[in-house]
Formats: sequence, C-alpha cells, structure tokens
Amino acid sequence: MSNNEIENLIELMAKLPGLGPRSARRAVLHLIRKRALLLTPLSDAMQAVAVTARECLNCGNVGTTEICDICSNEKRATGELCVVEDVSDLWAMERANVFRGRYHVLGGTLSPLDGVGPEDLSIPRLLDRVESEHISEVILALNATVDGQTTAHYIADQLEERVRLTSLAQGVPIGGELDYLDEGTIGAALTARKAL
Amino acid sequence: MSNNEIENLIELMAKLPGLGPRSARRAVLHLIRKRALLLTPLSDAMQAVAVTARECLNCGNVGTTEICDICSNEKRATGELCVVEDVSDLWAMERANVFRGRYHVLGGTLSPLDGVGPEDLSIPRLLDRVESEHISEVILALNATVDGQTTAHYIADQLEERVRLTSLAQGVPIGGELDYLDEGTIGAALTARKAL
Ligand SMILES: [Zn+2]
Ligand SMILES: [Zn+2]
Repeated sequence: MSNNEIENLIELMAKLPGLGPRSARRAVLHLIRKRALLLTPLSDAMQAVAVTARECLNCGNVGTTEICDICSNEKRATGELCVVEDVSDLWAMERANVFRGRYHVLGGTLSPLDGVGPEDLSIPRLLDRVESEHISEVILALNATVDGQTTAHYIADQLEERVRLTSLAQGVPIGGELDYLDEGTIGAALTARKAL
Repeated sequence: MSNNEIENLIELMAKLPGLGPRSARRAVLHLIRKRALLLTPLSDAMQAVAVTARECLNCGNVGTTEICDICSNEKRATGELCVVEDVSDLWAMERANVFRGRYHVLGGTLSPLDGVGPEDLSIPRLLDRVESEHISEVILALNATVDGQTTAHYIADQLEERVRLTSLAQGVPIGGELDYLDEGTIGAALTARKAL
C-alpha cells in the first residue's frame, strides 16, 4: 500500500493513547468501511472540537466555554473544592455523581526528579481560589501513587490551618476481589477497617 | 460536562475497534491537548481518506485508486494468487514482504449458520480471475479458524484440477489470525507452503 492518505491516517491514529500500529490499521480499515456512518462524522466532530474545546480559566476542566458548566453553576458553590490531577479524574468523579462542589485540576503531580515543581502545576492558582472562593474544605482526590501522595502532602502543608483538608478513603473497591488487589490496597483497607 | 461537541466526539471514538468508552475519553482529552499537532491533522487526514479511499475493483484491496498498486504492477503478474479473508490480512502479508504475486480479498468466510454463502463473498470473482489472469497457483492464506478452513475447502473443491492449490504451512498457530502474527512467522509459513 503506497497510498499516502491512508498511511498518513494510520500513522496519526497510532499516536492515540491505547492504539498501537496494529490497532490503528484495523481502526482505519473499519473507518473506510463505515465511511458515511463513522469516518466523515468523526472527521467533522474532530473539527468541531478543535474549534470549540477550551480549558476552563477557573478550574482547568475541559469544555466549550471560557468558564466551565461546573464553575458557572451557582448551586455548586458549596465551599467544597475537590483537587484532581487530571481532567479525566474530574470526569470520573462527575460520572460517580456523588460530589456537589467544584473542582481544581492540577494538571499533573509534583515530580522533583522530572523537574516538575509547584509552579508547573496550578498549585498557586489553587491557593488563590481557596481564599477568593471562601473554600471551607479541600478534598484531595489524587491518585494513590507515590507522586500523587507527595503532591497531596505538599498541598496539605500549604493549606494547613486555612481550610479543612480531607482525602478520598482508601480500601477495597465495591465488587473488588482481594485476590486481585495489590498488597498496598489490602494493607490500607485493613488499617482503615471499621466496626460492623 | 454538558458539552455536546466533546461528548459527541467521545461517543464516535468509542465506536472504533479497540477503544471502549474509557479509552475514548482519554483519547479525546489527549487530542484536545495536542490540538495543533494531532487533532486538526487527524481530522484533515480522515477527510482526505473519506474522499480518496476505495476498494480495488480487481482484488478488493483498499487504496486510493480504482485498481490498486499491486494489481497494476506488471511485475506482480506472476501467476500466483494469494487468497485472504480481509484487507488487513493482505496488508499483513505485504508487511512480511515475502510474496511477489497478487491477492484476492474474499471479504469474509463462508458461514452457513449466519447465512453467508459463496455469492456473499467474492468467490465467483475469484473463479473468474483464475481463468482471465492465467493463474497457475492459488495460495489459500485463510485464517486457521473453523470458518477459514471451511472456506478454504470450498474454494479448493471449486478450483481442483484447474490450478495448483496450496495453503500456508504450519507456523500459523491453531486458531491464529494472520493479522496478529509477526512477519517472520508469516514468511516461514509461506516458504513452507504445501500442496492441498
Ligand atoms: Zn471550571
Ligand atoms: Zn487490487
């Protein structure tokens, strides 16, 4: 196949997270077969997102407005701010549909070895927001990784005595089987065990 | 996120083989972050493929011309015809770079239970080509699945005594699909092909 357009599309598709060269080829063949139903609509949808997508100036969420729907929803000015590493974490929290406050997306974690310091994340902006939005509780919903926990501790140090600080509980996921869990999770779940 | 353009893109991406809803969301966030480098080029590449991609009228390969590069390459008129189920198999054979003849893409396998008969595949066209292109050897490179082997036997019955019939040698694992194999395995299987 010396077909530049098709090869070019395969190469670009292979750059998507979760798709390698092989699955990119399969996806492109699938797209060509579903030209009217999928290929053209997908191209148009990408074009639309390229034009409209933007980061919320307040929280870092991705949406189609300068200030995202959550930040502009007055009902969500509860004084609770949930701090997440990434937009995908914010979306996961929203799907869970259990949190009624607002968010703050850090854009990563502190990583001294990679030269990522507080000023490379939106930590200064977080400290500003805690003041200006009269936040009473900051929920640190960072990943249970070394970098995530290092970042949580750094933020906790900065906000100590200015606000109530909490983090998501660690434990066995609903429906989780012990045999599939790593030792760290089991240990955390045991430590945080509750009376029945 | 009540952002129609973004949600629409996620829904469409989730229809790609190999991507579920979760990886579609990740891919879309990645695309938004790489707007200039990836999102816009990908949209343009899809548009270009939607306009230019077509099935070769002769063999069923997917390319950008009415007759594909392989069929229009006189050097490949070797009298050998390699029969594959799908375009992805043809591409896998080409990556192995061990076959110098031409191809015939069936577009699937016979499947009486699903009502797929010879006329639903390009089997009649294969029989025509064997005559009109003066084919001396038909290599049945079908998947080592029940349907693949049923189809191979059906074609062998049709072509018996008209042409030399071979199939890929052992080296294709039981239940294995060509598109999952490395080039070395495909090459070895072709070299050691056996008469049926
Ligand atoms: Zn926001
Ligand atoms: Zn062709």
